[in-house]
Amino acid sequence: MTQSEHAARKAGGATALLVIDMQNDFVRPGAPACVSGALATVPAVVRVLEFFREREWPVFHVVREYRRDGSDAEITRMREFTAGVPYVVAGTTGAEIVPELTPADGEYLIIKSRFSAFLGTKLDFILRRLLVGTVVICGTQYPHCIRATAYDALSRDYHTIVLADATSAETAEVAEANIRDMAGVGIQCLDFERFRTFIEDPRASQRRDRV
Amino acid sequence: MTQSEHAARKAGGATALLVIDMQNDFVRPGAPACVSGALATVPAVVRVLEFFREREWPVFHVVREYRRDGSDAEITRMREFTAGVPYVVAGTTGAEIVPELTPADGEYLIIKSRFSAFLGTKLDFILRRLLVGTVVICGTQYPHCIRATAYDALSRDYHTIVLADATSAETAEVAEANIRDMAGVGIQCLDFERFRTFIEDPRASQRRDRV
Repeated sequence: MTQSEHAARKAGGATALLVIDMQNDFVRPGAPACVSGALATVPAVVRVLEFFREREWPVFHVVREYRRDGSDAEITRMREFTAGVPYVVAGTTGAEIVPELTPADGEYLIIKSRFSAFLGTKLDFILRRLLVGTVVICGTQYPHCIRATAYDALSRDYHTIVLADATSAETAEVAEANIRDMAGVGIQCLDFERFRTFIEDPRASQRRDRV
Repeated sequence: MTQSEHAARKAGGATALLVIDMQNDFVRPGAPACVSGALATVPAVVRVLEFFREREWPVFHVVREYRRDGSDAEITRMREFTAGVPYVVAGTTGAEIVPELTPADGEYLIIKSRFSAFLGTKLDFILRRLLVGTVVICGTQYPHCIRATAYDALSRDYHTIVLADATSAETAEVAEANIRDMAGVGIQCLDFERFRTFIEDPRASQRRDRV
């Protein structure tokens, strides 16, 4: 395959969805590692999932899991585990994906123990096998798992899109700062409705841009 | 080696410096990819280098290089190369480290073509061989190469420190937003003087914290 053939193949490749860390311990109010903005995005993530499922486009549910003793947690987070406040421990309810977003048959589950969904997982192998050219990301939270995954996706030559209204942070200010940085390297951050319009009618989307 | 032995070894391990992307095309005013804040940090990076060299602690110079045709540049940056405004092209003056920060004999040169210094490089292999436990980062620029490298270092279990006054961004606002996010996962961002005090007299540093 020549370089230009490869580029063409990627440009016309499949579009995959990554839903990141939408687990009880990160989403449910009062949970040990709750991200303030996460619960409010659940309905938007449901709509995104429906969109991908209708088209039978690949869906990846990416979740974090740690051992109860924290021995596989980030070195800066082990203290929380030894202090007896662990979270997303494998096998607990807290580590489960929130019920509204339960994976459907045939969807991929990727378990990670770091920020990026690519680090120490099979994600890239599967994306390549599926000839994915564009990775669409949503979930929580902006500064850490979303962003690390987005940079790693772009670094592996995927066109990378973050769905802003289906992605959360502790505050709107944090979200905005992260969107600005990501836009600086060409990671597109846009609302789901705009993404949907672009997919369904790219020309209409371009016309709107010119107005 | 047991888990606790491993933890002890890392805790007492060596401290390595990564100086990132301090190349003419990113630092010199008027260069095609100049980062506004980079030139002003050169004297601080010089002081940091002197500190590490005096102690004979390992120093890594991490640089970005692309092919002139952009075929190894990020997919979102290829346009600049095909439009005839390439930067940090291997073999050009623009890709060279600024003269003030020229690597000394025995220091490591790591060439990367993505944001993270760990991606597609031998950096982690060498850090492990040197039994490095703490990675100290400076250079440019905060939101992209500094941050991606810091998250990747933490994800590989290195204690990770960013020297704030020896690290740059386009604006102070961008720097601050990135420092805040990184602090949230335990990546310490502190000025060189404070880092130096801590290394030279950890107890004095702790006393000052209590005042």
